[in-house]
Amino acid sequence: MSEHNPANWIAERTKTFDSSGIRKVFDLAAKLKNPVNLSIGQPDFDVPASVKAACKEAIDSGRNAYSPSQGIGPLREKLREQIQGRFGHADRDVFISSGTSGGLTLTMLSLVNPGDEVIIFDPYFVMYLPLVKLVGGIPVLIDTYPEFRIDLDQVRSAITARTKLIIFNSPANPTGVTPSREEVVGLANLAAERGIALLSDEIYSQFVYEDEFHTPADINADTIVIDGFSKSHAMTGWRVGWVHGPSAVIQTMIKLQQFSFVCAPQPAQWAGLAALDVEMSTHRADYQAKRDRVIQGLQNHYEFTQPGGAFYLFPKSPWGSGTEFVTQAIEHDLLMIPGGIFSQHDTHFRISYAAPDETLDRGIEILRQLAERPK
Amino acid sequence: MSEHNPANWIAERTKTFDSSGIRKVFDLAAKLKNPVNLSIGQPDFDVPASVKAACKEAIDSGRNAYSPSQGIGPLREKLREQIQGRFGHADRDVFISSGTSGGLTLTMLSLVNPGDEVIIFDPYFVMYLPLVKLVGGIPVLIDTYPEFRIDLDQVRSAITARTKLIIFNSPANPTGVTPSREEVVGLANLAAERGIALLSDEIYSQFVYEDEFHTPADINADTIVIDGFSKSHAMTGWRVGWVHGPSAVIQTMIKLQQFSFVCAPQPAQWAGLAALDVEMSTHRADYQAKRDRVIQGLQNHYEFTQPGGAFYLFPKSPWGSGTEFVTQAIEHDLLMIPGGIFSQHDTHFRISYAAPDETLDRGIEILRQLAERPK
Repeated sequence: MSEHNPANWIAERTKTFDSSGIRKVFDLAAKLKNPVNLSIGQPDFDVPASVKAACKEAIDSGRNAYSPSQGIGPLREKLREQIQGRFGHADRDVFISSGTSGGLTLTMLSLVNPGDEVIIFDPYFVMYLPLVKLVGGIPVLIDTYPEFRIDLDQVRSAITARTKLIIFNSPANPTGVTPSREEVVGLANLAAERGIALLSDEIYSQFVYEDEFHTPADINADTIVIDGFSKSHAMTGWRVGWVHGPSAVIQTMIKLQQFSFVCAPQPAQWAGLAALDVEMSTHRADYQAKRDRVIQGLQNHYEFTQPGGAFYLFPKSPWGSGTEFVTQAIEHDLLMIPGGIFSQHDTHFRISYAAPDETLDRGIEILRQLAERPK
Repeated sequence: MSEHNPANWIAERTKTFDSSGIRKVFDLAAKLKNPVNLSIGQPDFDVPASVKAACKEAIDSGRNAYSPSQGIGPLREKLREQIQGRFGHADRDVFISSGTSGGLTLTMLSLVNPGDEVIIFDPYFVMYLPLVKLVGGIPVLIDTYPEFRIDLDQVRSAITARTKLIIFNSPANPTGVTPSREEVVGLANLAAERGIALLSDEIYSQFVYEDEFHTPADINADTIVIDGFSKSHAMTGWRVGWVHGPSAVIQTMIKLQQFSFVCAPQPAQWAGLAALDVEMSTHRADYQAKRDRVIQGLQNHYEFTQPGGAFYLFPKSPWGSGTEFVTQAIEHDLLMIPGGIFSQHDTHFRISYAAPDETLDRGIEILRQLAERPK
């Protein structure tokens, strides 16, 4: 025990995952002077003016101290009203989290015992695996390649006596895929039948194009829903989201928030209240056009599933692994994320089309050249 | 497993602590129309104007997206410079956390394996016990009543082969006590000799009165230090702090931050950069005067250890338990926190003197009356 090297103090749970893959990409990218950047998981527009104004007004009027753990009353009440109006569930509570990541972290801490299994669809948002492992849970991956659809039979056979939670994400990061109503209903019912918690990560719910947005909470009244302002209102750096679900779960998360995140930043919560009144549909139309631009530019050159939402496209590498292809792209000044960051397979890559059209056009041009490159 | 009640999903770790004690106090307090509020753990002044201006400027100039996990470069570099100037340690790194609570949470996740023991001095800051339990650690309490000094022999006998971490907090919440240089040196050396991690929670370091501020990091180069802007610049609701320590520990915390807190709120980090240039010594003098006002008002009526820092006084209940006494005080419109919230003993109560002088005077008057009340 008296090894005096601080590196020996590090807890085991931190060694179950690493962040070296993405760091290597960013290290490579750091050498680029003026990259065509299609790697960024956030909108390319700024926070709406009225939302900025609300934040600054909160600051000026001295709303700078801790808020209650569960969030400021007016924001929580307004969300509660919207949520009750939509779902009308008898037992649905809500609180304000420090972004959706805060909501995810508290969900894991609140639900997952060491050894509990958590079903995750592969590809997945980068945070899911580390968070499950951080609390001692066991990620159980369901492979959804090549179409990224939900196969209920696969889910059924993945369920064991230790299955505690299923994580669902639509529109999905990194694929942009939006499961059909049938898939959502099937998954929601299956979780309900088996008494398994279902977490619906809905951070991209404002970015759904042709189809309607489907949430399992419409079907399964015990669904835990995570949402936030980060993507819809470009508030990624403001750290405000919310979680709604069964009151026992929400109350536990609030209790844990008190001893960890404490509260979401107070001025940003007042900004969130203003954000609820801002119509973002022009941005949605704008992003739909960007999606179509990228699809049109790449469809004859790459293999991909047409995304119904979010702002991502997840094509298959035309040659080499995802990492090899992205490394080559970076050498041509194009920055993207290799699929292995989001998956057990390193066969694809993620394009974010949350970028100006000129940037998209430059990216499309480089990608067309790279597709034809003989290995 | 198919119990369909969401309450059955809750993880065991969340049941190892509760927050009902403090909730009961606040429920009682909520009934008061215009309480004399000496319960609040934050300054009664507002964020300095130049710091507000820096935050608003960041918002206006579009610095609203995610920052790097480790924090914005300029703030991190400026802190690094200050820290290197002060300590000159070869292996000391720093990152920006989401308040000191974020730093505490990440310290526990980074260092404490299930079954590891963590030495905590009783009374303690409310968050320490739940955080240790949340990661499966075992809090080992060292009773410091009645003088709240550190007895090295007690610490030595508390150390076992499983001791991973010692948590030190000066100036201390809830007692306001500032251990002497001798105590700090002794503890720092003991941790170094035994190869045990030492966490120094220095959030009240700007509120030290007669004495100099002593940090164990001056003695023990592997000390992990947590600090922040919350108390010094009244930025409790802005969620920005920092942690410095051995690079292996800091790098682990940054890795975990990426998958949990993501980053501290970006505009507030720019505000923190401005805060480093704001001289707060008039506030220190002001708070020292408040401390003296309360001491003078209560010294002939209550038993307490003279606090050398922070903005708390921790007197012994003149009759009944801490909870009984505080309950009675609330009935007389005076809001304080019972000592049992911070301790295994329910014999004291915490007064925060971060309040206007008129409020302090009203509080002193009520306390004088209550001291004389026969049980």
